[in-house]
Amino acid sequence: MSITQIGQGSYEIQDVSVAATAAIGGPKEGQGPLGSYFDEIWPSETHKGESFEEAERALTEDTMELVVKKANISWEDIDLVMGGDLLDQLVSTNFSARRHQRPLLGLFSACAVFTQGLGLAATMLSDKGPRSVLVTAVSHHMAAERQFRFPIELGYQRTPTAAWTATAAGAVVLVAGARHPVGIEAVTFGRVVDFGSKNPNDMGSAMAPAALDTIQRHCAATATTLQDYDAVYTGDLGVIGIKLLTLLGGERGLNIDERVRDCGQSLYHLVEQDVHNGGSGPGCSASVFSGYLYRRLQVGQWHRLLFVATGALFSPTTYQQGESIPCIAHAVSLTHREPGGTTL
Amino acid sequence: MSITQIGQGSYEIQDVSVAATAAIGGPKEGQGPLGSYFDEIWPSETHKGESFEEAERALTEDTMELVVKKANISWEDIDLVMGGDLLDQLVSTNFSARRHQRPLLGLFSACAVFTQGLGLAATMLSDKGPRSVLVTAVSHHMAAERQFRFPIELGYQRTPTAAWTATAAGAVVLVAGARHPVGIEAVTFGRVVDFGSKNPNDMGSAMAPAALDTIQRHCAATATTLQDYDAVYTGDLGVIGIKLLTLLGGERGLNIDERVRDCGQSLYHLVEQDVHNGGSGPGCSASVFSGYLYRRLQVGQWHRLLFVATGALFSPTTYQQGESIPCIAHAVSLTHREPGGTTL
Repeated sequence: MSITQIGQGSYEIQDVSVAATAAIGGPKEGQGPLGSYFDEIWPSETHKGESFEEAERALTEDTMELVVKKANISWEDIDLVMGGDLLDQLVSTNFSARRHQRPLLGLFSACAVFTQGLGLAATMLSDKGPRSVLVTAVSHHMAAERQFRFPIELGYQRTPTAAWTATAAGAVVLVAGARHPVGIEAVTFGRVVDFGSKNPNDMGSAMAPAALDTIQRHCAATATTLQDYDAVYTGDLGVIGIKLLTLLGGERGLNIDERVRDCGQSLYHLVEQDVHNGGSGPGCSASVFSGYLYRRLQVGQWHRLLFVATGALFSPTTYQQGESIPCIAHAVSLTHREPGGTTL
Repeated sequence: MSITQIGQGSYEIQDVSVAATAAIGGPKEGQGPLGSYFDEIWPSETHKGESFEEAERALTEDTMELVVKKANISWEDIDLVMGGDLLDQLVSTNFSARRHQRPLLGLFSACAVFTQGLGLAATMLSDKGPRSVLVTAVSHHMAAERQFRFPIELGYQRTPTAAWTATAAGAVVLVAGARHPVGIEAVTFGRVVDFGSKNPNDMGSAMAPAALDTIQRHCAATATTLQDYDAVYTGDLGVIGIKLLTLLGGERGLNIDERVRDCGQSLYHLVEQDVHNGGSGPGCSASVFSGYLYRRLQVGQWHRLLFVATGALFSPTTYQQGESIPCIAHAVSLTHREPGGTTL
């Protein structure tokens, strides 16, 4: 048995490791501080596909092809594919499955979907069950903007609190067995937290309480504090969300120090690239993990990472109907271990 | 260890059983041939909620409350909730989680989501992992129509091949251990099949090839034929989809006899209730299973059921962009066993 329930929605994981990761981004993501960690940068946001939606699909297709290649396996070795995106009816994930033809589990948890997928895969993998699961998430700036807000051609002014939906995809091949240096040690699935925010242009504030709830539950279940991790990455709270998380955490006795950073805050040069609060979208945390975060663990620069993607679970319809925004966060903690060695 | 991989996306399951099911439907569903199997029938389709979307949410909330009550447990005993719906950004599933406050895994597989959830839960449940998972799916006729096609107030004429999105929800509490008479014995997760259909008013034809693919893979992995089951229920192929499945199955040596029926075909009096091809929507297969199908297994009238929900994974945007419709089907086989006895 590879998993043990250690708290509400929390599971200790044994013998699950990362065979490979891949990340592909758009030009703006390439120009950001993490640009060099992407495997590939598209020369334009419409590099492939006839529409923004087709471009998003091509982005996830290419990233999945790449991660299978980097894992040095074939598609036939992938037992299950799990993934998600922001588009209505999950069309990027679903349509891209026409190409890979592997059994598909569609997931939706807005921008938290990548850690939902990592968590689900980690709890399922075993020597007798699925032995290899591909987890992926994608977003595309233009496709998301015209679906959730306005077509970018309108040239509307963005609020100071707005996030920039990343054009990016990340993918991971998780396998049963501790064959690879980076492994998943625990996961905590989030519950919905709704603090009553109704502002779709300030997702960071809406999501911070959900991040806090999941972080506290993960730490309690695993008997850790944030100081036990070399790094803690949320995604995608941005500048404002991290400030609120620090404030709320402080009130609850959680020491949110400088080791706590955010994928959305890290992906861009915030001022120079004019992204306001930071990056967002399922592809933001997925690509930051698959590029930068994984590399830090892989080379042993970090030995332990807590990765907590966050999602705002509203739709344009619920916003127009005056609803508040339920949010969620799913946590995954990962460790680097020396070949043949054990963690901790 | 409770699961064994027996084929591509196929898993044999041990020691997972159904603690309870619940189904709530709208008035049209109550007037259908399976009306008496619902736990509750709403007096109108807008019985609760200020909008169609709020009504859909209330429907899934009430069904979840009911299944927890019928399982004779409390919400604190539910380790995870998994669910899905058709609305953009899965808002029924996500917003309803504000009420139950349990760890949530959002799933999207269109009308196939209920068996995706049953399958996922079955592969995760164990004595050491999650011990109790609530799986749910919902749809609402008016909410779906105005999102996918036209507001019903328009009074447009439906094509002869069109399906009727059910106003219904189903929910199941699955638990680790063979304590209850109905258990899950195997699951097969679907892969995407796209036969090139572009007609959003004929989902039955689009989905039949996906149903066939999953049925064949499930039978191969479990070394069964359709004649080994007391009943085989697809959902939601309708009249036309079942005809096409029979035709395609015949060409591939699969004997699709009278034991193969369809949830969408069974939910309504097709002619008298003017539903054309039959029912559809995640709530159709979820409520037909949670009401009628489960009852047949529970009382031992059937000893073995193959349940294969199907989904058409398009969106209004992909349709308008001229895309064909990728489809998927996930299979779950269930057995009735005598208390203390074994199946087969």
